[in-house]
Amino acid sequence: MSATKPLILQDSQFMARALELAKRGLFGTSPNPRVGAVLVKNNQIIGEGWHQRAGDKHAEVLAIEDVSVRGLASAENSHCYVTLEPCAHFGHTAPCADALIKAGIRKVTIAMVDPNPKVSGKGIKKLEDAGIEVVTGLLKQEAEKLNQGFVSRMTRQRPWVVIKLAMSLDGRTALSNGVSQWISSPESRQEVQRLRAQVCAILTGSGTVQGDDPRMTVRADDLGYAHSLISIPTRQPVRVIIDGQQRLNADFQIFKQPGKSIIVLPRGAKTAAQFVKAVAQHDIEVLLAPTISDASGDHVDLDFVLQQLASKWQVNELMVEAGAGLSGALIAQNLFDEIQIYMAPKVLGHKGKGLFNLPEFEQMAEIINVRFQQVRAVGRDIKLTIKASDTSNSNETKENTLVSGV
Amino acid sequence: MSATKPLILQDSQFMARALELAKRGLFGTSPNPRVGAVLVKNNQIIGEGWHQRAGDKHAEVLAIEDVSVRGLASAENSHCYVTLEPCAHFGHTAPCADALIKAGIRKVTIAMVDPNPKVSGKGIKKLEDAGIEVVTGLLKQEAEKLNQGFVSRMTRQRPWVVIKLAMSLDGRTALSNGVSQWISSPESRQEVQRLRAQVCAILTGSGTVQGDDPRMTVRADDLGYAHSLISIPTRQPVRVIIDGQQRLNADFQIFKQPGKSIIVLPRGAKTAAQFVKAVAQHDIEVLLAPTISDASGDHVDLDFVLQQLASKWQVNELMVEAGAGLSGALIAQNLFDEIQIYMAPKVLGHKGKGLFNLPEFEQMAEIINVRFQQVRAVGRDIKLTIKASDTSNSNETKENTLVSGV
Repeated sequence: MSATKPLILQDSQFMARALELAKRGLFGTSPNPRVGAVLVKNNQIIGEGWHQRAGDKHAEVLAIEDVSVRGLASAENSHCYVTLEPCAHFGHTAPCADALIKAGIRKVTIAMVDPNPKVSGKGIKKLEDAGIEVVTGLLKQEAEKLNQGFVSRMTRQRPWVVIKLAMSLDGRTALSNGVSQWISSPESRQEVQRLRAQVCAILTGSGTVQGDDPRMTVRADDLGYAHSLISIPTRQPVRVIIDGQQRLNADFQIFKQPGKSIIVLPRGAKTAAQFVKAVAQHDIEVLLAPTISDASGDHVDLDFVLQQLASKWQVNELMVEAGAGLSGALIAQNLFDEIQIYMAPKVLGHKGKGLFNLPEFEQMAEIINVRFQQVRAVGRDIKLTIKASDTSNSNETKENTLVSGV
Repeated sequence: MSATKPLILQDSQFMARALELAKRGLFGTSPNPRVGAVLVKNNQIIGEGWHQRAGDKHAEVLAIEDVSVRGLASAENSHCYVTLEPCAHFGHTAPCADALIKAGIRKVTIAMVDPNPKVSGKGIKKLEDAGIEVVTGLLKQEAEKLNQGFVSRMTRQRPWVVIKLAMSLDGRTALSNGVSQWISSPESRQEVQRLRAQVCAILTGSGTVQGDDPRMTVRADDLGYAHSLISIPTRQPVRVIIDGQQRLNADFQIFKQPGKSIIVLPRGAKTAAQFVKAVAQHDIEVLLAPTISDASGDHVDLDFVLQQLASKWQVNELMVEAGAGLSGALIAQNLFDEIQIYMAPKVLGHKGKGLFNLPEFEQMAEIINVRFQQVRAVGRDIKLTIKASDTSNSNETKENTLVSGV
């Protein structure tokens, strides 16, 4: 028993290193998952790799190449630790399973199996058929968390949806006249920039665009990283704008920024044509969505929009930066996974704008329940991470530390 | 140097023990401060005492008596650790300074000097004049925190004001129809009961009384303490009800509970007479207050009310359990020291009732700034402790851990 303990520890350490490498792809791999790989021989790392950008080489292949870059003879008989099941199909690149077999790898330890039900297990089978020992599940939770968006798209056919908000102590996002600069601290705003840089797409509504005329782009300098420490994204998240009332035109800033914009209009929208025309200058696409009618009028079918973002544009992670209307609709329809709130030590009063427009409830039994996952100090603010209560699972709740130190 | 170190450590330990004893008076000493005392001889505790109730013996005298209770010979030549400067004046009891002198105490270490400018230092002088060595300031901050209400009354002539609120994630205290049971968790409600039991008085408004007809009493069984572990209060906090619009009568529950109620009415109020009449059955007092006029009408002068509560009723600590009107007025007029918010993982929506009624702000520069002092998990809720930003002091901010573990 005691003799095996140090080995188990090292297994986790090598996988932790692979996860660390995978995280370097946080800002770049979309729509691909973040993957890291480590090759080990005689308890020594002989090669490392991580996926950097869709279309580029995969982590396993880069790790194998890294062996010769380091001037070592070969990856033969080494042990590969990889955060995601190696692929078995031809995409932009040849299957990684084949590359591992060709390199003569002895054993492969995998954190998580490919979440795509159609391909899941095929990479493992290919490796095992070639006589390679395969172990799965080491640091599985960490690997899944790193790719929660990819898992969501593969298993639920919709993105992982994070509603981001900055609010005052009394739950207000702006003064009654719309002024909201700056509720949250510089440190909080920098974190939001980093989240923007990670996600595949940002969702907003026509009200926010009309009111603030924002750009919603990532500016590498605003991330606060030393350029040498992390690969800074050249990629811009896709900007998705819901315009159910056809109030926008292509002249707003958001449509003129580098990267793609998707304008979501109700089917039969008259304004669709002008956006299609604007494609010539800017990368704008139009998504025509069905509408749903309720007491407060016609609304674009948000469930449809999320599904389209996943299937047509491969959006893994979606950040919502919107007003109380769109944020409230997502909450009311349970189309969210996380709410990230930056709470500022300020009081705006009852006339300030609220967070979520929701129907009028008559009993407490009707209200929407969520759960706190983490609380953290950010500058003078507090950041609350909240989960939809239906994504709750007892294991996760147990293992999380609700409140973490500064 | 190194030889003195263990002694310094023990000094703090004895004072920490005295503070622990003082805390046993949390629910009982009002309007007196909480005080604990320890007598030490040859590095052994030979007597302990704490003040339990106004009118009863003081901590120092009880500690001296405790020596013989333990069957020990005498307190002579012992070292007394006491959390507050011993008194030098005759009140309900004889001066403690005299008792210490008479007992032949060799040295007295005091955490904090009496905050009352008129008597401060007189106890120390009396001891020193009798040839006793006096040291002050050991664990001063802890002692001051334990008696922050008493310090406030002595130095600012107003109580320490804590605004207590339960709110949803989106800053709502109730549904639009007034329903608010139960936003916060059972654990949070138990904490509020404990806070109620500690404070000298609870402040509320006529809106809350009319809407909920609450009792606002302490029920020992709701505190969740084992009866043997702590002295359970028989004392009820004074209930203070602001009724600027003269909407109340003596039939509401709050006026019929054990303990005192104070109804605050505008000067010349026609309803005052009926409350005076009700005094026969219940302990009700009437405070007639001047009014202040602003754009939204006439309001009772809250600053005057707080001063009267301190001077006439010796209120050290005041907890505010009120609606958005009264809470907002206290915030707007900067008549508060702390806000304690129990935040529930629930979303009530924009139609729910807000926390603070405040004037309409046009610029962010006009809003009210506060600061987070602590965040803590309570059951499924989060408790935020917030300080008025003008009570900020750099020492305190540095020494506090903003976010503490569960």
